[in-house]
Amino acid sequence: MAELVLSSADQGVLTLTFNRPDTLNAWTDAMGRRYFDLLAQAEKDPDVRAVVVTGAGKGFCSGADFKTLTAIQTGSYASEPDPRPNTFPTTIGKPIIAAVNGACAGLGMVHALVCDLVFTAEDAKWTTAFPRRGLIAEYGLSWVLPRVMGQQRAMDILLSGRVFTGREAAELGLANRAVPGESLLAQAQAYAGELATYSSPASMAVIKRQVWHDWDATLEQSAKVATQEMVASFGRPDFAEGVASFLERRPPAFPPL
Amino acid sequence: MAELVLSSADQGVLTLTFNRPDTLNAWTDAMGRRYFDLLAQAEKDPDVRAVVVTGAGKGFCSGADFKTLTAIQTGSYASEPDPRPNTFPTTIGKPIIAAVNGACAGLGMVHALVCDLVFTAEDAKWTTAFPRRGLIAEYGLSWVLPRVMGQQRAMDILLSGRVFTGREAAELGLANRAVPGESLLAQAQAYAGELATYSSPASMAVIKRQVWHDWDATLEQSAKVATQEMVASFGRPDFAEGVASFLERRPPAFPPL
Amino acid sequence: MAELVLSSADQGVLTLTFNRPDTLNAWTDAMGRRYFDLLAQAEKDPDVRAVVVTGAGKGFCSGADFKTLTAIQTGSYASEPDPRPNTFPTTIGKPIIAAVNGACAGLGMVHALVCDLVFTAEDAKWTTAFPRRGLIAEYGLSWVLPRVMGQQRAMDILLSGRVFTGREAAELGLANRAVPGESLLAQAQAYAGELATYSSPASMAVIKRQVWHDWDATLEQSAKVATQEMVASFGRPDFAEGVASFLERRPPAFPPL
Repeated sequence: MAELVLSSADQGVLTLTFNRPDTLNAWTDAMGRRYFDLLAQAEKDPDVRAVVVTGAGKGFCSGADFKTLTAIQTGSYASEPDPRPNTFPTTIGKPIIAAVNGACAGLGMVHALVCDLVFTAEDAKWTTAFPRRGLIAEYGLSWVLPRVMGQQRAMDILLSGRVFTGREAAELGLANRAVPGESLLAQAQAYAGELATYSSPASMAVIKRQVWHDWDATLEQSAKVATQEMVASFGRPDFAEGVASFLERRPPAFPPL
Repeated sequence: MAELVLSSADQGVLTLTFNRPDTLNAWTDAMGRRYFDLLAQAEKDPDVRAVVVTGAGKGFCSGADFKTLTAIQTGSYASEPDPRPNTFPTTIGKPIIAAVNGACAGLGMVHALVCDLVFTAEDAKWTTAFPRRGLIAEYGLSWVLPRVMGQQRAMDILLSGRVFTGREAAELGLANRAVPGESLLAQAQAYAGELATYSSPASMAVIKRQVWHDWDATLEQSAKVATQEMVASFGRPDFAEGVASFLERRPPAFPPL
Repeated sequence: MAELVLSSADQGVLTLTFNRPDTLNAWTDAMGRRYFDLLAQAEKDPDVRAVVVTGAGKGFCSGADFKTLTAIQTGSYASEPDPRPNTFPTTIGKPIIAAVNGACAGLGMVHALVCDLVFTAEDAKWTTAFPRRGLIAEYGLSWVLPRVMGQQRAMDILLSGRVFTGREAAELGLANRAVPGESLLAQAQAYAGELATYSSPASMAVIKRQVWHDWDATLEQSAKVATQEMVASFGRPDFAEGVASFLERRPPAFPPL
């Protein structure tokens, strides 16, 4: 049996690849568990400083597997769901970059958007799909999308379920960058490599937590936490190294998380 | 006496037209009541699946009627206001698309932006107008605008009250699309027609409620509600029809709301 | 000893200039105190209707002064910090426009973004810098940036600390306008002059307060406050003058705040 999620590491960058290409990497509970297990391992692995997530074959993730949906419909779906929510990647203390190589639909879009950054192939096909299947804005997308792209743009793609390209995804603010498909993975890995080389792992862990948490905070609460985190950062070797490497005009050598 | 708001329906799309063209459709309490009554009817009408709102003549809505403003100034304004807030359209379970054909000022802008999507003529003139009349950010615009277009862009148009075109409205993220004026209504109606044809009415009602509510929710709360709504959606005929029509590669035949 | 912050006024527009050009206007506690004192004076000065903030020489503000950072590292930093938070400018009842003429890094970026609008030179170099120094998202930037530019774009510049130009800052939504450096200050002052001429000072004070506060409010709370503020605005001479000047097609003559 093939691995449901492929894993390879190079110079601090872990690349995870959804590997059910015959279904455009449709999401199953088993594939999800494997993905989350690998993320949990990555968080503990001192050799991993940034993660890239992509899909094998022509798709990124085509959404919930149709066999699962049909089993739900017929009442025969018996699997005990993974207790980790779909937002689990937001709790991992290392940056995760989605490299959306192709079809990105429904639940697949959820998993692209709970990554910290999104790179996409220009001609990848994106769609929420939900209203066209009689479904709703699943797993927090009604919360995430307006904050990523603005209220009315979110309404457009949630209410219509229309298909749009990676190029439009970048224009809409859903993706940080849309690039030609043949260079997508290399560009995402190069960006992740920059994070692995130049950004302090401790800093990235704190910053990621700050950004995700601050949606529920007031500006004053955020500033207060930032002050505490800043004082804590002064005591870490990363700060000394960050200042020293800057003054000495050399790349930093930050310790692992 | 002419109808204050014109109404016409075609293939699931209801078009409502503000009809005080001699004042660029300045807002009066009477026109507002009529508009909201028609929206309330539309919500109950099984033949309506999406709503387009536009203005008769050269304007969309030029803001509060000056006679009303003058009456307020002189203390002679006696009308009992409509108890329904300006955000009433956000509570209607069907998608509402503003087609901003011309002048869109002050209170008119409020009514464009509490619609779910906004299409605009490229050369329509938009302005908040408030600070130039000694007024403030009325009716929740100080809440809506930063979420639609970002903090600093919102400050620009709220603090200056400057006039900008529909083209800039789209660049600023205020409008989903800016198109030539002569094709505006047809394009908005065509988009609404797509919703009426391909999107489940039950799905759209839930999604609209989710998006408007989730501004006040945490990501966890949003995801929890989404799970409940998802389970509910599995039990509706819309889900069976959505999956079946997808697998059979035919347009869906969703039941009315 | 040179003034730490230069100050000049012209026709209602106060221009404040950070004046430590040999350090690209690196932030010191003393410079910050002087800046905030001048803002507090400006709020009380009836001749000031709008404020422009810029930097002397090649930079806007290069971030926290390295001597300060080094003193913090070595434990020799003894200064009693200013009790006013970095968000102090958001509490000033007059509009503040940052004119980012050059390097804008770390704490400098914080101070650009707690202004109400941001104009930038096209080739100004921006960077959060934090993760490259082992620091975190300081002073509320993890709260402000996602609201200004969207979640993923904020993650990009916070996690990477990469350098980007003023042109990209405008594309990302960080800046309202990117213009050639040689015309930056004139354009920011001209915009501020429009505010001083056409926008009611009372309106601007209320609107600014509304926008900053409404991030923590629900739409209903915002609309309720807006109604109270609207009723209050009806009783001010600014409203009568705003309506009269509009009907008489002449510039308004609003009273000072």
